[in-house]
Amino acid sequence: MTHIFKKLTPVEEALATYLAYLHPTSPEETALSDARGRVLAEDVTSPMDIPPFHRAAFDGYAVRSSDTFGASASNPAVLKIVGKLRPGDEIELSIGEGEAVEIATGAYLPEGADAIVPLEFSKRSGDHVEIIKQVPPGANVDRKGSDVSRGDIVLRRGTVIGPFEMLLLASLNIARVRVFRKPVVSIISTGSELVELGSPLSKGKIVNSNRYALESLISDLAVPQYLGIARDDEKILGEMVERGMDGDLIVTIAGTSVGERDLVPKIVRSLGGEIVVHGLSIMPGKPTLLALIDGTPLIGLPGSPVAAMVAAIEVLLPVLARLSGVDGAFQWPRVRARLDRRIASRPGVRHYVRVKLRRRDGILLATPVRVSGSGIISSLTQADGFVVVPEDVEGYEAGSEVDVLVYRRWLKL
Amino acid sequence: MTHIFKKLTPVEEALATYLAYLHPTSPEETALSDARGRVLAEDVTSPMDIPPFHRAAFDGYAVRSSDTFGASASNPAVLKIVGKLRPGDEIELSIGEGEAVEIATGAYLPEGADAIVPLEFSKRSGDHVEIIKQVPPGANVDRKGSDVSRGDIVLRRGTVIGPFEMLLLASLNIARVRVFRKPVVSIISTGSELVELGSPLSKGKIVNSNRYALESLISDLAVPQYLGIARDDEKILGEMVERGMDGDLIVTIAGTSVGERDLVPKIVRSLGGEIVVHGLSIMPGKPTLLALIDGTPLIGLPGSPVAAMVAAIEVLLPVLARLSGVDGAFQWPRVRARLDRRIASRPGVRHYVRVKLRRRDGILLATPVRVSGSGIISSLTQADGFVVVPEDVEGYEAGSEVDVLVYRRWLKL
Repeated sequence: MTHIFKKLTPVEEALATYLAYLHPTSPEETALSDARGRVLAEDVTSPMDIPPFHRAAFDGYAVRSSDTFGASASNPAVLKIVGKLRPGDEIELSIGEGEAVEIATGAYLPEGADAIVPLEFSKRSGDHVEIIKQVPPGANVDRKGSDVSRGDIVLRRGTVIGPFEMLLLASLNIARVRVFRKPVVSIISTGSELVELGSPLSKGKIVNSNRYALESLISDLAVPQYLGIARDDEKILGEMVERGMDGDLIVTIAGTSVGERDLVPKIVRSLGGEIVVHGLSIMPGKPTLLALIDGTPLIGLPGSPVAAMVAAIEVLLPVLARLSGVDGAFQWPRVRARLDRRIASRPGVRHYVRVKLRRRDGILLATPVRVSGSGIISSLTQADGFVVVPEDVEGYEAGSEVDVLVYRRWLKL
Repeated sequence: MTHIFKKLTPVEEALATYLAYLHPTSPEETALSDARGRVLAEDVTSPMDIPPFHRAAFDGYAVRSSDTFGASASNPAVLKIVGKLRPGDEIELSIGEGEAVEIATGAYLPEGADAIVPLEFSKRSGDHVEIIKQVPPGANVDRKGSDVSRGDIVLRRGTVIGPFEMLLLASLNIARVRVFRKPVVSIISTGSELVELGSPLSKGKIVNSNRYALESLISDLAVPQYLGIARDDEKILGEMVERGMDGDLIVTIAGTSVGERDLVPKIVRSLGGEIVVHGLSIMPGKPTLLALIDGTPLIGLPGSPVAAMVAAIEVLLPVLARLSGVDGAFQWPRVRARLDRRIASRPGVRHYVRVKLRRRDGILLATPVRVSGSGIISSLTQADGFVVVPEDVEGYEAGSEVDVLVYRRWLKL
């Protein structure tokens, strides 16, 4: 074999080593309305209470609880209605002894009141109301600050702003947030056989499709900056890599193995860079390169599309998470399924086996997609997810229960 | 109680009834580079073969396999080297009997050759090469069309275009695709107590935060069109709903229960609409309304933020999937965890219990987040996911193994 790596590194070890060199981008301020999917660059301390006032949790009557002591159907407390409050009313109301305010859920509790009597325990006649049940202080009131207190740390640095973080931040009337700048990823495709999408395909040429897959995969977390196709020429590729160094991360595609035409490792060395990891113990995805050039990380992905995708998921996404300041790991949609065919694998290497999911007689079955030759691009779209066979396992028998990492967010099961 | 629903409908039943009225939007054409996350509006038939030519799968020599019959280390076949092919070379080469071409992985197989002898079974001297192992026809060649054949249906209508679909479509040199138009969702917030983010909060007012959560939740699949805040006034809300009918779906927030101030059901009726479902057997999320006004669907979400979010996830997302043409259901990131506290629930209602995940002694524990009063917004951000307690189950004991639907894509576990 011409393509022999001296050592294959497990993904966790490779990442632990590599991530130690990497830091989040600098923070910037953005409008909350533009902050979807962004990563908080600082802890958020609440500037206010939620609820911001004592709030009625039921429709009914705001009362002084002491006025209801001993009240019952046979011995109602009769209170004078001195006003009405609906949510959003800006009037100032207060009650004294023997008084009540008609109130709707969400309105503020008037001064002097300390409880709400729900409608069903009241009977109105004219400007008086009979209360037929006693209520303790605080009953049916959402106390000011009971959800969030002013000064609480409500969100931590490194949190991705999803719908629920939006909800909380907006509720706190926080209109601008400090987030990490989205890392710019310089993407360089390599290979003289590549042409751009939409160009005519002359003999021996193929479309540079990895680029689109990669841009699609990373654009939640990063800003892809596509630099073009470098022919298999050291000078051209070297110049492109140097241009890519204005980004936060360089990703090259193909040319990462150990053959004569594998220019990426050579370029890294010729630019004075350091190869941190070369060769991962994953299949597909082995010829992956993790390097640093003058502090800028460079990830060399394999050229074979499925290998490129697996390496991107396993290595590029965690690296982007680090650069984006995300405190956490990617959570896969995941289902438990029964293998309906045997999976073979080589010990010492982690295998990513593409499987198609289908339900039969109420049981979820996972069928490994047959991969013959390099018939591989279609295997990704025919399959619904990966079964990961760990390094210390020699495949799985048919009938085994396995976890399937589903790589679609929407899927018919 | 003032808020009593005559009947609570299970989510699946509500959706089955409601979705039957709804259809995907019209198709439109878009550039593949803009098609991330879009939904295919037609089956895609491959216009070409992948690989588009017989392709070398190894570095070595392209040969006529018949010339290698019987070759061994002691009895090598000696072939004349008539050229060299690298990937992307545009020269036309062919071989005859007794000839070979030096070839690199990814190059096209020259005319006359039918197999590749890998480098390690060859020994070059000058313009001749000794082959020390025989190869059968087709050896180490990725045959034209072995991945995808021209005319194959490679992707089905209703597929969401993710990274791998991008990869396949670009490989097929398909630069434009027909996708369903992204549905426009008219969002109407209701409630006189609401003010917009960034406004001063006078007494009794709260920020219209549901809007941001909702926009964030739906914007992968839809185009949110925010219409503003309708005060609790039938005329104002009615006019806003009528304006919203230029969208594909109207979503109102709050005012969906059965009280005097719950204007949304009234508006639907006054505009001649039909209430298809009112009241779901879920908790939180019960006061949800599914309606149709002159063919336009209207979903009335509850005003309580957590209820709004649960209803949006359970009902609005599947409705958007239908309108967007997605063929499939949303796949949650999901983990198996052990409950470290009891969960109580009422039979007949499906409960969504927020839990916080943490690892202790290698075991993943799920702790229900204590919810007191309406202290609810912070419960969503403190928790990492939901444990769903089905209608026919009366809670779970501490120590039970449960599935947690993780609502973050990035999470530290």
